[in-house]
Amino acid sequence: MINNVSLEKAGHLLQNAESVLIFPHINPDGDALGSSAALCRVLRNNGINAWVLLEEDVPEYLKFMDTEFCTQDQSCIDEPDICVCVDCSEEKRFPGRVDIFNSGRLKLCIDHHVTSGSFGDYYYIDGDEAATAQIIYKLLLAMGAEIDSCVGSSLYVGISTDTGNFQYSNTTSDTHIIAAELLKKGIDHMGIMVALYQNRSLARVRLESMIVDRMEIFSEGRAAVSYVDSAMLEKVGAMLEDAETAIDTLRDIEGIEIAAFIKEKDDAVKVSMRAKYWGRVDEIAVRFGGGGHAKAAGCTMHMAVDEAIALIKKEITNYLEK
Amino acid sequence: MINNVSLEKAGHLLQNAESVLIFPHINPDGDALGSSAALCRVLRNNGINAWVLLEEDVPEYLKFMDTEFCTQDQSCIDEPDICVCVDCSEEKRFPGRVDIFNSGRLKLCIDHHVTSGSFGDYYYIDGDEAATAQIIYKLLLAMGAEIDSCVGSSLYVGISTDTGNFQYSNTTSDTHIIAAELLKKGIDHMGIMVALYQNRSLARVRLESMIVDRMEIFSEGRAAVSYVDSAMLEKVGAMLEDAETAIDTLRDIEGIEIAAFIKEKDDAVKVSMRAKYWGRVDEIAVRFGGGGHAKAAGCTMHMAVDEAIALIKKEITNYLEK
Repeated sequence: MINNVSLEKAGHLLQNAESVLIFPHINPDGDALGSSAALCRVLRNNGINAWVLLEEDVPEYLKFMDTEFCTQDQSCIDEPDICVCVDCSEEKRFPGRVDIFNSGRLKLCIDHHVTSGSFGDYYYIDGDEAATAQIIYKLLLAMGAEIDSCVGSSLYVGISTDTGNFQYSNTTSDTHIIAAELLKKGIDHMGIMVALYQNRSLARVRLESMIVDRMEIFSEGRAAVSYVDSAMLEKVGAMLEDAETAIDTLRDIEGIEIAAFIKEKDDAVKVSMRAKYWGRVDEIAVRFGGGGHAKAAGCTMHMAVDEAIALIKKEITNYLEK
Repeated sequence: MINNVSLEKAGHLLQNAESVLIFPHINPDGDALGSSAALCRVLRNNGINAWVLLEEDVPEYLKFMDTEFCTQDQSCIDEPDICVCVDCSEEKRFPGRVDIFNSGRLKLCIDHHVTSGSFGDYYYIDGDEAATAQIIYKLLLAMGAEIDSCVGSSLYVGISTDTGNFQYSNTTSDTHIIAAELLKKGIDHMGIMVALYQNRSLARVRLESMIVDRMEIFSEGRAAVSYVDSAMLEKVGAMLEDAETAIDTLRDIEGIEIAAFIKEKDDAVKVSMRAKYWGRVDEIAVRFGGGGHAKAAGCTMHMAVDEAIALIKKEITNYLEK
């Protein structure tokens, strides 16, 4: 944990502000938006002029959330007392809002990503927390704020999305205890679950099925590759983003150590790769001019899908057999 | 709740037995097996001759569990002091083991399915519990038993599988509190998650893809039905249990309120049904002599797959249009 302020003091500062502008990171996910929404709602309930400032629309799949105070209007508050970045702690995570962030009389940072460390006048960064929403929950407790079903729902979205709904390894006993407390606030648990996890479009389901049909297993069952091209998208009325989770489906197959997924896009192909236990897909991606992390990497190749598949299969086979 | 015994008294009876035979339901799922395994392990730790009696092999996907005391040998205990049925409360849920169950000096029943009500000499049936594993957890607390990582893992599997890993509407504050307590026991959370959710067999993935390919959407996009038959299983080298999660895939499609999935088994078909928001599939299942919960129910029909699909589609359409 890196901090130069306690949650009690941070809460005291926020409660005594007249205006607070909240900055989730770009392409906000459930945790960035849920954490920001919960904080904003509580501040407004306390008569504070609070807004969540974005640089894009709320993503379609998160529009069910409490987001009426989300705005892209950088002049929504004239000279904010406090600017607080939430679920991010680097300027490059809110590139289009840096000037307005720096215009705050006081800059506060609340995050669970341990990246650049200290940031702003006051910062509270705890990498042991599964979600920033867990920190916001503790901040609200420290403020003595009322967590109603609306605030609780936003926090639950944050915790659920950042833990893969309690499936990822960051899930702790604390995560479940907070979830238990939030359920007691009368949040619409089922509404949230359905909105987040039980509403895949028919096109997406049909597309994923086609991707599995076209999947090749190779290197003695240790690798899988599949692809999506424009003809497939057209056939089921899907968009390229509907293929987003296909790579996980491939990796999650028993025995698969490395999975590759190829997306035809304009006149190139984008390759995503995943490793399960010990593989390092960044080492494979780098051979094609790409990069990434050990377990998730990618590259772009300027050739036809079938040529890319052949090359990728060869490289993965070499890697697994060495 | 229907009970004629407290958990304290049930625990006292179990602790004072010399031999206990445990009966999960046929085709045991994670909750039936997890609840049985946790109870069996604790009884053995207390020097009691305890076994879990099955009428089939442990399903492949649950073989990672603590199941060395699972047996199909009906003579494993001669005249058991207590026979306890777990996660089931009707003879038809353990049809091949009824005689040996009735040979117990005392018959005990612990379940969270409110079906036939009272059953056995002593019964504790609580339909408000998300999983029988939650009741077993409370029983073990009442017994003052030590819940180690092994016992905790079995209970976690039961709770996770019966709540869709905290996603279904049966998930309560209590569910999360118990999960938090179990995580504190040092269970291998990630190992369980990978085993249950990130290691689908190739046959299962291929089968699910075929099931989606054969899916019909009807009643103005509010219902989905699909099926699995022996030809499909043969084609991809899958077993019937590989179709276990297909019903969720159907229900999770945007706009779908009711999903039905039909499994050809011997000369009958087994129908599983799920509702998403407001539907009550138990009301539909009961018309075909089945039953279950509001959001998850099923029935058995003695006819061909295509005939069953036609009947089910008609009944669901009537239900959705009324």
